[in-house]
Amino acid sequence: MSESPTDVTLQDRAEIAELFARQAHAIDGGDAAGWAATFTDDGRFVSPTYKLTATGPAELTTFADNSNSGALARGEQLRHYMSQTVITVVGPDVFRVDGYLIIMATSSGGARVDRSLVVLDELHRVDGAWLVHSRTVFNDQAAMAARAVAQEES
Amino acid sequence: MSESPTDVTLQDRAEIAELFARQAHAIDGGDAAGWAATFTDDGRFVSPTYKLTATGPAELTTFADNSNSGALARGEQLRHYMSQTVITVVGPDVFRVDGYLIIMATSSGGARVDRSLVVLDELHRVDGAWLVHSRTVFNDQAAMAARAVAQEES
Amino acid sequence: MSESPTDVTLQDRAEIAELFARQAHAIDGGDAAGWAATFTDDGRFVSPTYKLTATGPAELTTFADNSNSGALARGEQLRHYMSQTVITVVGPDVFRVDGYLIIMATSSGGARVDRSLVVLDELHRVDGAWLVHSRTVFNDQAAMAARAVAQEES
Repeated sequence: MSESPTDVTLQDRAEIAELFARQAHAIDGGDAAGWAATFTDDGRFVSPTYKLTATGPAELTTFADNSNSGALARGEQLRHYMSQTVITVVGPDVFRVDGYLIIMATSSGGARVDRSLVVLDELHRVDGAWLVHSRTVFNDQAAMAARAVAQEES
Repeated sequence: MSESPTDVTLQDRAEIAELFARQAHAIDGGDAAGWAATFTDDGRFVSPTYKLTATGPAELTTFADNSNSGALARGEQLRHYMSQTVITVVGPDVFRVDGYLIIMATSSGGARVDRSLVVLDELHRVDGAWLVHSRTVFNDQAAMAARAVAQEES
Repeated sequence: MSESPTDVTLQDRAEIAELFARQAHAIDGGDAAGWAATFTDDGRFVSPTYKLTATGPAELTTFADNSNSGALARGEQLRHYMSQTVITVVGPDVFRVDGYLIIMATSSGGARVDRSLVVLDELHRVDGAWLVHSRTVFNDQAAMAARAVAQEES
């Protein structure tokens, strides 16, 4: 295996798949600080749908905590499923990941699909570990609602 | 790692996982020609349920375009999730892949499971890249409907 | 790649991903004995929700057979989707896997999410192959129902 900065190695792929799995277990398991720790110190989570930007460990922890506590208060356990990832090299120790994210929600009444999102990540390698420098999530439901409005107005 | 023609290498696995992810992003993102380009020149997509066979870039592009445009016209964004892949060697540069495919559909009203399919692929390595030579998709809903009819008649 | 007992190698990751995929195809395809054969001879499947423990090939085969036959008798095809796996080393030839499991159910009327579970596996390497020594599945719906009762009583 070559290790030129233009390669995504098999080791990189394994580490990034595990990063996403660890994020899911952390946020869904109530470990908001652990989820935030998968971002760089200046890491950013952006949801254009909710006009939300959380930057840095404190804001990221609050965001993750609210997300999980809010669901539990509604009687729902969320589960994040990230998959269909395509990794491309941006520069030395900087990758772009395009992925799909399905969030499942389960209550005492049963399980359902809560949300479908497309995720755009910029990952940075810091001290040998891949972390999220920025994540932008695009909500399919919001996109379809905007599309419906645009078509009505046209 | 041995590289005998009877092995599926880790590199093969990574390339094939990315092939499937790229297909999802292409077909769901409206890049029908990009989706068709993941098939060999004589590549074939077969849906026994819809009695559909699309062969070659032009037919494959039309199929992908219709699938995506049709969904958007109904107000739905489709997302293809391929997973649970088992790869076996058929011959030199020819692999068989058995996988599961869930298609999610999201409208302005929410997200739902649209379809569950089992996928049977034959992949060929052409100029060093894995491409789909043939894909047959088996629709669980159609199978269960056929089973119900068979039981009624028996 | 180092091969110290404290490492999860890329080869291990690939073999374990394929183990889980093979399990899904086996149990959903009616190959109950094939599913049971992915466990060690003293392998154990535990569902606290259903107060069920199946140990050894005969009980595991019966469990898998009942699960699949029961679904088909209700007119449903189940599909098991394991993902978001985090693998940690317990000792030489012993790994722990934390994963998410979604079960989809499709009838002649359509597809839906049946169940969301968290899976805790202990895998053993036996004669060079990873097998499940113990699997415990935690049902999100049961957990949310128990939570609701606890809150009512408090």
